[in-house]
Amino acid sequence: MQDQPTKWYYEYITPELFLASHLKDVLYSGKTRYQRVEIIETTPFGRCLVLDGRTQSSEADEFVYHETLVQPALTALEEPRSVFIAGGGEGATAREVLSHGTVERVVMVDLDQEVVELCQEYLPNHHQGALQDPRLELVYADAWKYLEATEERFDLLVMDIPDPLEAGPAYLLFTQEFYSLAQTRLNPGGLMVVQAGPCGPLNYQETFTAVHNTMVNVFPAVSPYRCYVPSFGSPWGFVIASTGPVPDALSSQEVDARLAARLSRPLRYYDGITHQGLFHLPKYVREGLRTEERLITRGNPLYAV
Amino acid sequence: MQDQPTKWYYEYITPELFLASHLKDVLYSGKTRYQRVEIIETTPFGRCLVLDGRTQSSEADEFVYHETLVQPALTALEEPRSVFIAGGGEGATAREVLSHGTVERVVMVDLDQEVVELCQEYLPNHHQGALQDPRLELVYADAWKYLEATEERFDLLVMDIPDPLEAGPAYLLFTQEFYSLAQTRLNPGGLMVVQAGPCGPLNYQETFTAVHNTMVNVFPAVSPYRCYVPSFGSPWGFVIASTGPVPDALSSQEVDARLAARLSRPLRYYDGITHQGLFHLPKYVREGLRTEERLITRGNPLYAV
Amino acid sequence: MQDQPTKWYYEYITPELFLASHLKDVLYSGKTRYQRVEIIETTPFGRCLVLDGRTQSSEADEFVYHETLVQPALTALEEPRSVFIAGGGEGATAREVLSHGTVERVVMVDLDQEVVELCQEYLPNHHQGALQDPRLELVYADAWKYLEATEERFDLLVMDIPDPLEAGPAYLLFTQEFYSLAQTRLNPGGLMVVQAGPCGPLNYQETFTAVHNTMVNVFPAVSPYRCYVPSFGSPWGFVIASTGPVPDALSSQEVDARLAARLSRPLRYYDGITHQGLFHLPKYVREGLRTEERLITRGNPLYAV
Amino acid sequence: MQDQPTKWYYEYITPELFLASHLKDVLYSGKTRYQRVEIIETTPFGRCLVLDGRTQSSEADEFVYHETLVQPALTALEEPRSVFIAGGGEGATAREVLSHGTVERVVMVDLDQEVVELCQEYLPNHHQGALQDPRLELVYADAWKYLEATEERFDLLVMDIPDPLEAGPAYLLFTQEFYSLAQTRLNPGGLMVVQAGPCGPLNYQETFTAVHNTMVNVFPAVSPYRCYVPSFGSPWGFVIASTGPVPDALSSQEVDARLAARLSRPLRYYDGITHQGLFHLPKYVREGLRTEERLITRGNPLYAV
Repeated sequence: MQDQPTKWYYEYITPELFLASHLKDVLYSGKTRYQRVEIIETTPFGRCLVLDGRTQSSEADEFVYHETLVQPALTALEEPRSVFIAGGGEGATAREVLSHGTVERVVMVDLDQEVVELCQEYLPNHHQGALQDPRLELVYADAWKYLEATEERFDLLVMDIPDPLEAGPAYLLFTQEFYSLAQTRLNPGGLMVVQAGPCGPLNYQETFTAVHNTMVNVFPAVSPYRCYVPSFGSPWGFVIASTGPVPDALSSQEVDARLAARLSRPLRYYDGITHQGLFHLPKYVREGLRTEERLITRGNPLYAV
Repeated sequence: MQDQPTKWYYEYITPELFLASHLKDVLYSGKTRYQRVEIIETTPFGRCLVLDGRTQSSEADEFVYHETLVQPALTALEEPRSVFIAGGGEGATAREVLSHGTVERVVMVDLDQEVVELCQEYLPNHHQGALQDPRLELVYADAWKYLEATEERFDLLVMDIPDPLEAGPAYLLFTQEFYSLAQTRLNPGGLMVVQAGPCGPLNYQETFTAVHNTMVNVFPAVSPYRCYVPSFGSPWGFVIASTGPVPDALSSQEVDARLAARLSRPLRYYDGITHQGLFHLPKYVREGLRTEERLITRGNPLYAV
Repeated sequence: MQDQPTKWYYEYITPELFLASHLKDVLYSGKTRYQRVEIIETTPFGRCLVLDGRTQSSEADEFVYHETLVQPALTALEEPRSVFIAGGGEGATAREVLSHGTVERVVMVDLDQEVVELCQEYLPNHHQGALQDPRLELVYADAWKYLEATEERFDLLVMDIPDPLEAGPAYLLFTQEFYSLAQTRLNPGGLMVVQAGPCGPLNYQETFTAVHNTMVNVFPAVSPYRCYVPSFGSPWGFVIASTGPVPDALSSQEVDARLAARLSRPLRYYDGITHQGLFHLPKYVREGLRTEERLITRGNPLYAV
Repeated sequence: MQDQPTKWYYEYITPELFLASHLKDVLYSGKTRYQRVEIIETTPFGRCLVLDGRTQSSEADEFVYHETLVQPALTALEEPRSVFIAGGGEGATAREVLSHGTVERVVMVDLDQEVVELCQEYLPNHHQGALQDPRLELVYADAWKYLEATEERFDLLVMDIPDPLEAGPAYLLFTQEFYSLAQTRLNPGGLMVVQAGPCGPLNYQETFTAVHNTMVNVFPAVSPYRCYVPSFGSPWGFVIASTGPVPDALSSQEVDARLAARLSRPLRYYDGITHQGLFHLPKYVREGLRTEERLITRGNPLYAV
């Protein structure tokens, strides 16, 4: 009994299902203008960023999440030069984007300066100094307003924002109206990728299929995919919208060749074979995508559980 | 507070990580000669078989586990007629095996008659009557001893046994000696498939890579793969050993064609595209497999955490 | 890890504090017309009755709760003959009342026939056959309506009802209006005793002090006391209202003499010395009682957390 | 779901029973030469000192524990001048001792300098500056060795040490041999008080009755008592051994008179009436004390669960 772990962090997946991790330390706990923020350290996952009670990423598996978010879309572009990131406070999305030598300019727009600064201080293994890269411009603003105001166009938009919680800052960025705006800010042939919520057998229809269906209504081509992120207690879904190349058509060989030519640092999760695994979704997920009819709009938004 | 769930089932993944599900009912709780047995019902997963404190399968996601265990190997065989199942007490492995019309004979050898009978009573949605199929012979025996004694040869051996727990009944069936025996009980060109333990970023090196390496030392060809099983709180690894066809070489079209020709009931998880997703493992898993050196033997067994 | 308990029952004390017990079995789980009912078995507490998510009593410590509820008031009466019980579905309150040989008539009025019948079936160690005693009349009715309609008067009223939950059936029985009615149904010199909610350092002001203050406003004399009930995760408060003898004035010797003369079965918790311990409350509780000003009325009811 | 507490501290009472508190912060977590130390902050209990996975005291209820440990014995002495404290790292035991104006000298011997210094830094509401009182001498040493070596005699010895854990530093201080040594270091008519482990219906026989019986074998008079400490998840037992006045014989009036004459600060828990409540133990506890036969010795030590 004396050797039992006594401190636990509960990550709720649904009200009736949670993943509990042995909690070693609470490095920060507070509230910003926009959300509750905690930076904790757990035995299984190391340091974790938790916003509004949900893990955004952990040291142990952020390589899975961030490589999966960024690398397929970036690799699918023949010569990506300019990238827009919405959110991405940990700095790890910027790190992945900047790993491709072709990239010349990154604009990262995060709403919450406090979160970005806390991550700079507490999560060095996440950002690895990426925010100091001279190619990156960091702006504290609302992504919607920023994109509306700018005349700049990008090769890739990366939506690395929290789940669409009812009380949270992100739910409007999961609507048809936002996707329509986003499309106008892409260079010809450009792509957008979004993290799209949980994607396991129990929860793929919570957010993922509806986000996918909404993007299908806006973009000419859409590629859903998923990976498993242990600290989320669930597989996680992503969707790439394309006005040009379609990522799931890439061969393993082509992925590996592009990575070899461009990467400034090795990857741990993603390569040509991984790429095939990501985009070949199980039958039940594909049927859920096919039969989904919900359309997410400002007037009819979607809230995560 | 009055609406909070108050009954919980903890599925330990490691001593510092568990998945907690709202527990609705305890249908059975007892000890057989071989192991602790519980049949519980949880809100997220429905009815679950739990042996020695570990979930073996649940109503909500057993289709993922059992189709993934059986269908790739069975489909890779051109005309599977005879199948041997070790374990499989829920009856769902037999259900999958019997779904292929080519199958003429199934021998299912389970050590624990009480478990099989409890599953017959409490888990009808798992077995769906498969154990009453006239093509199936059910034997209560030790799989090692049965295979040693029989002169019969099989097209496919399916190892659906619990993890190799130190105090449990199954750990000897994960050794080089057992695999060597098993190989001699295959018809020419036959296959064997084993459930091989957890396979997420945190735990793929606990059991999976060592089982794979041990099978590599015995069989001419070995194909590792994985799927995500929510009630296990982790992705799960499998390995097919082959003396004939290599399953990961099958095209999606070929898989779908064979299923269309043979299946007596529709599948929910597995088809040609799913097949590609299963066998294209992420980079870190493949590197773990490549660098693994442990060999599991009777003298040097492996015990799960 | 394999020896860790995996099934747990959470008893919430507040939303931020719960007591977790190893859950062995769920004997019954359902809903009556009035409330959610569970009969569970835990390792520390044995069989427990849980109504609306709150433990009402457990095999391991119901002797503490039921003796404390009944014995001080019953013993304080010189010759108790007639007793009214509101609630008391487990039958253990009746058991305690009937243990005094002077008692000739007990009327037990419980709202919920299903709960009483479930307790008869599943909690034999609680009731020990008390409901079959020929001195007891069991009525399924609302206690308020029953007392309003009856012309009978009693020596003792025992209020063994659930906490005043907002959605629950009992909160009106904690009001000034009910206590005023109750007083009129007492024989001259009669007493009423109520379970009055948690009474530890953190929670004595939730319900206990307000119930006490409301009774002070109705009755000529009021005696608060408490005991510790492990399965409630808290000490528990009680209040005796008196129109005659004042229980806290009884000496240990007098208590022991009366018990010796009257009891048909031995007690485990209560005797003369225990009596002194019950009524000598700690300083902070007495100051909380002294400074309490809330008055519970139908128009201004109190709801437990 | 988003408003559920996600960080929890588990206080194990037995392997099958724990109290879970919402964890707000981990102020310190580390290992000293002697034990694991954590200083945490929980919502129900505020800041807590946890040694080897067990709560030693919390801001919310340390007044209950420390007043109960110190005040009855100190008040029972007619004119206490010199006090020895073993343990007491939080400084709150010293605070209580120093609250009596008669006290001229306090020697506090704690094994673990790091724990004392951490408490000085993190638990100001506990110690309230008591360790800076010029009447107090603080020594970092083993209490046994210190008492063996000193020629000083004391009016009161206060044993405020952790439970006798097998791997912990304190179990030898619960033996007959230690009590025999301690008795020789008392002034004529002096007292010793020890915290003696949990004392609820489920656990009073774990430690409490054996400690009591061991002290009965050494001292001429012994007075057991208990209080309820919420953060321990259990009532807690104490034993006063006396070579002079017997505390349970004190009247409420005498206690109040002595406190009025001596106290330099008001108390929240203890006074004359509380004193009566503490020493009037329930029947089952008294029977457990009466029938206990275990004798704790160096050769046959007792370890807490």
